Amino acid sequence: MTLDAVLAKIDENLNEATDRLLDLLRIPSISTDPAFVADCDRAADWLVEDLKTIGFDASKRVTTGHPMVMGHAKGPATHKATHVMFYGHYDVQPVDPLDLWDTPPFEPALEETDKGVVIRGRGSSDDKGQLMTFVEACRAWVQVHGELPIKVSIFFEGEEESGSPSLIPFMRENAEELTADIAMICDTGLFESAVPAITTQLRGMVTEEFSIHGAARDLHSGMYGGLAGNPIHVLSKLIADLHDDEGRITLEGFYDDVPELSDEMRSQWQNLGFDHAGYLGDVGLSVPAGEHDRTPLEMIWSRPTCEVNGIWGGYIGDGFKTVLPAEAHAKISFRLVGQQDPDKVHASFVSHVNKHLPSDFSAEFAPSRGAKASQMSIDNPAFEKSRQALTDEWPRPGSYIGCGGSIPIAGFFKDILGMDAMLIGFGRDDDAIHSPNEKYDLESFHKGMRSWARILAALAK
Amino acid sequence: MTLDAVLAKIDENLNEATDRLLDLLRIPSISTDPAFVADCDRAADWLVEDLKTIGFDASKRVTTGHPMVMGHAKGPATHKATHVMFYGHYDVQPVDPLDLWDTPPFEPALEETDKGVVIRGRGSSDDKGQLMTFVEACRAWVQVHGELPIKVSIFFEGEEESGSPSLIPFMRENAEELTADIAMICDTGLFESAVPAITTQLRGMVTEEFSIHGAARDLHSGMYGGLAGNPIHVLSKLIADLHDDEGRITLEGFYDDVPELSDEMRSQWQNLGFDHAGYLGDVGLSVPAGEHDRTPLEMIWSRPTCEVNGIWGGYIGDGFKTVLPAEAHAKISFRLVGQQDPDKVHASFVSHVNKHLPSDFSAEFAPSRGAKASQMSIDNPAFEKSRQALTDEWPRPGSYIGCGGSIPIAGFFKDILGMDAMLIGFGRDDDAIHSPNEKYDLESFHKGMRSWARILAALAK
Repeated sequence: MTLDAVLAKIDENLNEATDRLLDLLRIPSISTDPAFVADCDRAADWLVEDLKTIGFDASKRVTTGHPMVMGHAKGPATHKATHVMFYGHYDVQPVDPLDLWDTPPFEPALEETDKGVVIRGRGSSDDKGQLMTFVEACRAWVQVHGELPIKVSIFFEGEEESGSPSLIPFMRENAEELTADIAMICDTGLFESAVPAITTQLRGMVTEEFSIHGAARDLHSGMYGGLAGNPIHVLSKLIADLHDDEGRITLEGFYDDVPELSDEMRSQWQNLGFDHAGYLGDVGLSVPAGEHDRTPLEMIWSRPTCEVNGIWGGYIGDGFKTVLPAEAHAKISFRLVGQQDPDKVHASFVSHVNKHLPSDFSAEFAPSRGAKASQMSIDNPAFEKSRQALTDEWPRPGSYIGCGGSIPIAGFFKDILGMDAMLIGFGRDDDAIHSPNEKYDLESFHKGMRSWARILAALAK
Repeated sequence: MTLDAVLAKIDENLNEATDRLLDLLRIPSISTDPAFVADCDRAADWLVEDLKTIGFDASKRVTTGHPMVMGHAKGPATHKATHVMFYGHYDVQPVDPLDLWDTPPFEPALEETDKGVVIRGRGSSDDKGQLMTFVEACRAWVQVHGELPIKVSIFFEGEEESGSPSLIPFMRENAEELTADIAMICDTGLFESAVPAITTQLRGMVTEEFSIHGAARDLHSGMYGGLAGNPIHVLSKLIADLHDDEGRITLEGFYDDVPELSDEMRSQWQNLGFDHAGYLGDVGLSVPAGEHDRTPLEMIWSRPTCEVNGIWGGYIGDGFKTVLPAEAHAKISFRLVGQQDPDKVHASFVSHVNKHLPSDFSAEFAPSRGAKASQMSIDNPAFEKSRQALTDEWPRPGSYIGCGGSIPIAGFFKDILGMDAMLIGFGRDDDAIHSPNEKYDLESFHKGMRSWARILAALAK
């Protein structure tokens, strides 16, 4: 079975493939907001139908949350090559602040920019555009050769952007069906928007949502200001005290399980020639924050963080209300590395908050969610075969890199199913995922499909 | 003209008076929210019509904001006694958080409580219930005697809860019409819910709304967390640094124009036997915050404050979004005392914020609003006559007290029109003004009317 004909078919079908992606992008499958439950369901149905058209035995699977999509294609009967389990997620981030979008987030369209054509819309990069690169590669293989070169299974979830509450139970209950020789995950990016990469190191995460309670009710600041403690002040002080003057996180024991970067890894990363100034400059910044004694790349890939993702309290409408609020709230997330234990970090955070509460104040914590950091072994020959396939497609050779994000599924494949996971994706740093005006370069979409077509061929050998 | 018949008429008419107040309370005249412009207008119309029914030459006056209501009643032609200008405001505070109200805020009703019957609803105490005590006292005088015992003018504004942007221009343009012998303002309370009081000392205020800007767009905390500064962290640190460990405000020069309380005033206030523990205990608190070396009453009446009234930034919806926001916002108000100059405090605040900004961050300030603190002279005999009238009505003698709130109108009457202002009101500490479940005791309403009837009689002598 020749690869060239498959690549040619992908080139020929680019317009149709793009139209299919736009269809999927029009479904506002925001998993974190209960208002979009039916849309998540609709996105799952859309994927099931599409997978069926290219010969997958596909089905929607009910969970207590949003449904999963599963699909299986046998590949050649005579072949005993690698069985791949491909993972992606069809849910997307919320779109607020909506007024910062230049076009409606769920009316996707191609757009000419000075960096080339992009597909604009929520989910175009994270993760609908990425998962469709794989689906389209499979379609081209089937169209040209009537079947895939290897056995392929597909697993899409719809809760990746909302903490994946159904994922672990589903994986445990369907362990046999979900187990393959290797997992492939398309939810990462090119290195510096140019170098095709396999991510082998991912940070973990702990999320904390909590409230600070003061007086029994909102008070008039003229009658109680100064005298009654203000929960916003307490919360602000508490947040200010989460980092010391050197940018280090102050939770007790927080750095106990954080490994120092090996000299070998540090030197490999240095060789990547990361453009620190450009990375910050792209988003209008010039001075790195965070730990003073770490390089930016080291910070992003190998150091833990603590960020406030949201804060609110008191009167936040138009005009002014001189209220002294009874409560204030924040959402905080920690990125974890090495052996940091989410439960231990949560406990240390709770203890930090309670320690900082003045008299008369109390704190209330929503259930914390967490996942450990992941570190892949690249011993499985699929890694090197795939890296070579990427090198064949792109102008620069494929590299093994780290990633600052948290993709807990990689750890779950390892821990629950005993499978290694390869993280390959074609996102770019300026895709604005999780932000207004998210986009995916048409080149990422096109060469992404071609990359997967090559990887499928490489794994068949 | 006898007072007793007027008091008897007030007692007789209590139900009808209450029904009129409930009518007015049903109009959601929230001045700070543009959605309620028509309702503010409707409340002004309602008052004009009502004043006309009791013989006032009343009219609605257009401003660039919400309208003013003016009314004049000549009083006895043969009499040259005091001309009173009565002030109140028909606008009300916003009602959020709506879910903390036990009944809809604009469906007012009488309610039996263990402390007696209350009128429940937004504006019942601040200030519709209070202003109607005066209107009803006038009505009773007119019903019994066909006219008022003195010349009375009435001035209601509809922007008190939103910074009174039209007030000063209106007062300047209508100075002659607004000038009387003395101003009466009904927007304060009984001392400790029991002692009838004339407030002679009011704090001023400066309000600040501002934003902290960091990166050019919202960022993914996995890709930029730690490395890119977080505006919520910057804002939190800045707020935390507004007070030192002793509870003092750290703005440069902030205390320059803050007078020490005179020994005489301190001793007078001590004699009031203020229930510090009860005042805090009423709202579920036990430990005074604020300056460590001041008594609570001293803090509320004679010390400046700095409170965050609202804060917001990042993702504040349901679920979690690991965003590193591009901006964060807060509303902060300062209560001023003595000779503190609002412009100087604003300048010092701006300088404080800018000084605390890390590299790459900027701050944006909405226009600041301010008013100086007020200190009445009680030389005008109307003060002592009124205090005696209050003593006659209530179980405990009338007192001169301070107030932690800011009622800029008192200072404007003095500065623009050269009039002293007497602040007399019947609110109670547990009225929950500016909070959910606002109420006004039926006793406050009833004895408030009777108090004004007595004051009108006293000023005629």
